[in-house]
Parts: sequence; C-alpha cells; structure tokens
Amino acid sequence: MMPHPTNAVLVGKKKVSNYVIAALRMFTHEGLEEVIVKARGANVYKAVEVANRVTATLSSVKVERVKVYSERLRDKNGAERRVSCIEVALRKRRD
Amino acid sequence: MMPHPTNAVLVGKKKVSNYVIAALRMFTHEGLEEVIVKARGANVYKAVEVANRVTATLSSVKVERVKVYSERLRDKNGAERRVSCIEVALRKRRD
Repeated sequence: MMPHPTNAVLVGKKKVSNYVIAALRMFTHEGLEEVIVKARGANVYKAVEVANRVTATLSSVKVERVKVYSERLRDKNGAERRVSCIEVALRKRRD
Repeated sequence: MMPHPTNAVLVGKKKVSNYVIAALRMFTHEGLEEVIVKARGANVYKAVEVANRVTATLSSVKVERVKVYSERLRDKNGAERRVSCIEVALRKRRD
C-alpha cells in the first residue's frame, strides 16, 4: 500500500468514522500540521461531521478555514451538472 | 406578516430555490450588506447550495466566511444528540 501522498481526506460513501480516523492518524501518526477534509454533493454534511468530531477529539486541532464552491461534472450520459463542494482545513493550534 | 427581523436565512425542509430567492431579496430589495445562511444536519448541503447559487446569480455578492460547528439538541424522547451546523456569511463586495 502506498503511503498517503497528501494531507487531504476525501469524504465519500464510507461511514463518517472512517474519515475521522484517517484525519486523526494524519495529525497523531504522521505529525501533519494541517489536514484538508473535502467533499462534494451529498457528502458535504459528512465532511462537516468529520471536522467537528476531529476537533472534539483532539483539542489541539481547530477549524482553520472553510471554503464552499461549485464544480461542474459530467455524468455518465455526458450531461454537465453543477455540484456544491466544501473544503474544511483543520490545523494544529500554535499556542 | 411580520417583516423579516434579521439578516438570517434559516435553511430547512423547503426547496433550495425558496431560500435562494429569500437571500436574493434581502440583497436586492432590502438593501442588506450581509446575509447569513444557516443550516443544521441534513440541510447543511442545501445551505452550501444556496450560497453558491446566490453568488452565481449576483456577481456583486461573495462568500465572506464560513463557520462549521456542533450543537446539542434534545429529541422528542429527551435524549441529547449532537448535530453539525453551518453558517455561510454572504456579503456585498466593496469594490
């Protein structure tokens, strides 16, 4: 298995706890200063859940910034549709 | 009917377009500088949709800041549960 190449957690169809554990590991095992939790569409709520659970678990981590935006995707029929996305940057506190 | 007392749009069970129109009206008819789009739980995605549609429609409005947080609610059985929330502040550009 390849080591995780980036500091991003892409939230998809799995249970929220999977992504919470992935993000916690990045802070505690990999020693990262910042982890970005990303999601699109119906998974946006799960990304917010992941962020809130990580900061509730690790008091040394806070929500640094949140970005919301749209992306255009092509579905399997080639039709273009717009989907809302979120990125939550979690960061170790400096103090 | 009471006039809308605040600059908040509370996103609930209605269709996204209802909240988009409410937010657009606040900027165009009421002349507000800032509108806060809020949602809890499953409606978090809809709040992001509202924000993206408003900024796509009114190029003079941008996402000023986004806050994600948790709230504790009591359900009808009196049990406490935690729910993730979002607030998106939309603001007229100064330039």
